[in-house]
Amino acid sequence: MPEGITVALDGFGAEQGFGVLAEGARAAAADGIRLRVFGPAEELGLDDVEGIEVVPTSEWIGNEEDAVRAVRAKKEASVVLAAADVAAGRSAAMVSSGSTGATMAAATFGLRRLKGVQRPALAVQLPVPGKAVLFLDVGANVEVRAQHLVQFAFLGAAFSETVLGVERPRVGLLSVGEEAGKGREEVVAAHDTLAAATGIDFVGNVEGRDLPAAVADVVVTDGFTGNVSLKLMEGTAKAVTGAIRDTARSNPLAALGGLLMRPALGGLQRELHPDSTGGAILLGLRGIAVVGHGSAGAEGIANAIRLAARCAEVDAVGRTAALLRESGAGRGALTRRDEADGA
Amino acid sequence: MPEGITVALDGFGAEQGFGVLAEGARAAAADGIRLRVFGPAEELGLDDVEGIEVVPTSEWIGNEEDAVRAVRAKKEASVVLAAADVAAGRSAAMVSSGSTGATMAAATFGLRRLKGVQRPALAVQLPVPGKAVLFLDVGANVEVRAQHLVQFAFLGAAFSETVLGVERPRVGLLSVGEEAGKGREEVVAAHDTLAAATGIDFVGNVEGRDLPAAVADVVVTDGFTGNVSLKLMEGTAKAVTGAIRDTARSNPLAALGGLLMRPALGGLQRELHPDSTGGAILLGLRGIAVVGHGSAGAEGIANAIRLAARCAEVDAVGRTAALLRESGAGRGALTRRDEADGA
Repeated sequence: MPEGITVALDGFGAEQGFGVLAEGARAAAADGIRLRVFGPAEELGLDDVEGIEVVPTSEWIGNEEDAVRAVRAKKEASVVLAAADVAAGRSAAMVSSGSTGATMAAATFGLRRLKGVQRPALAVQLPVPGKAVLFLDVGANVEVRAQHLVQFAFLGAAFSETVLGVERPRVGLLSVGEEAGKGREEVVAAHDTLAAATGIDFVGNVEGRDLPAAVADVVVTDGFTGNVSLKLMEGTAKAVTGAIRDTARSNPLAALGGLLMRPALGGLQRELHPDSTGGAILLGLRGIAVVGHGSAGAEGIANAIRLAARCAEVDAVGRTAALLRESGAGRGALTRRDEADGA
Repeated sequence: MPEGITVALDGFGAEQGFGVLAEGARAAAADGIRLRVFGPAEELGLDDVEGIEVVPTSEWIGNEEDAVRAVRAKKEASVVLAAADVAAGRSAAMVSSGSTGATMAAATFGLRRLKGVQRPALAVQLPVPGKAVLFLDVGANVEVRAQHLVQFAFLGAAFSETVLGVERPRVGLLSVGEEAGKGREEVVAAHDTLAAATGIDFVGNVEGRDLPAAVADVVVTDGFTGNVSLKLMEGTAKAVTGAIRDTARSNPLAALGGLLMRPALGGLQRELHPDSTGGAILLGLRGIAVVGHGSAGAEGIANAIRLAARCAEVDAVGRTAALLRESGAGRGALTRRDEADGA
């Protein structure tokens, strides 16, 4: 457990309300993680909790706002203060369960990009039964060029190795066929660069059906395809388990069967639940930012905080920066910094 | 049942072999569908079957070949002959379980595009529990412009109405958020055109999680995202049902439960199985072409033939052409024919 790490928590934005957010914070604090929570002190009710400091603010940024404009305008917004806290070195990582766009904007402005990184990417651990797959980008960049996909591959590999403890993670590129020539123009170009790269274990193109089969440890795609895919997986898993539940209600024998299977199925459902992985991580910045599921329960919020603390504990940022510097193969793509890009 | 309709069947390409292909053909013929099968007479063993005529050929196109080049070079290839049979009016529709690329190329060259259609699109009925969703494009066009997405919407709506019998089908556009401004540039532009269009029931953007929830009858996307999504849904459904099967083996009580649920679960598994929908349909051509699942069993092949016959029976092509002509809203996009596009 990452004891003694301080995490800056956005005290607004959890869809299930302040009570659930506070419950998640308490659970993480009970693990020994220190928290600085930016939000409405009274509603949160966290003032007397050991290891938690509430920094009061009443300003926040909602889902419906223009994220970039709001982050620039609202200097006292909870997510902006959380990012500033990390930038100032008071906290080691930030977590928000509010607007994904606002969190990305606040983190990108507040923490800035790692040297050579053109576009930060949003990564998630897919809730695949029995195995973790790191999947990125799930929404930070709806349009990408080939060199961005190449950077995502290196960023994902570094995270998989440092935080998830995967030795020589196998990295795949999501496409419409296994052959090198398959896919959009930028995918084909990224494939060529990655196939020639050293310092990365590139396994080539992977297809949609390979994602749940966990044929790679890290799967890279653009933010449009990634966002659609992530939500589609969650929706499909829900539809299938729902249909099975309906089946168990279709006749008395099946209902008895469902009853007998329930304890074992509970474990699987927990494993498939988005809360289990704690949220998405913004990779490529000089600080750690975790975007919790907006609809997360207390356990999901606690897991997002734990994930952020774990990233800080293993110095994910420093080690990612070192890996990027060392990887000669990525250098071409990684040093051609385009100032017009990103934030 | 579409009795008396003649379907041209590619006698090569089924991964499970000639025996399974022939078994599927027999099952469809037993429904009263007439078949002209292009393939190796001896291996197929269909010569004496009522309603089936075998047109012998030994040439075919494999998955590994360059589809466009192979279709141009191999005049006697089974899939090329099947397309020519439809073009000549001897068959009313064609079906192939071979290379998707070769089937698309053979159909596009052989049957030609409907007036005003720039890009044919590949559509499938998603195996969603309890409800059919028509999803396109699942791989014909990995890169699209806004007007192509608009055309796909009209093509999909026409198919849903004529073949699937959905009255005023609700059409959604796949994106990364429900708001009109979300997504890639071409998605945002297509949204604007469709929102202003008459003659189509456009419900706006739908997200990945909405696909299995069947919030729309027709969902439109580019061929890259569509192909990844389709395979991802199949893979996720398989992973979840597989994990449930493993769960049922984890302890004796769960195993007994699984046994009691099995008859009811069998129906769901059949419903989720890709074979149930018969395959993908190439929309936007002057003839009907169905691309069967390469790995289909006999039932899948029979269902692909039934789907093709059903399309012919309801005159899907003629009615789609009429709908495209009538839809004033689509006209802007539909008449700016770009001869450099497509085949």
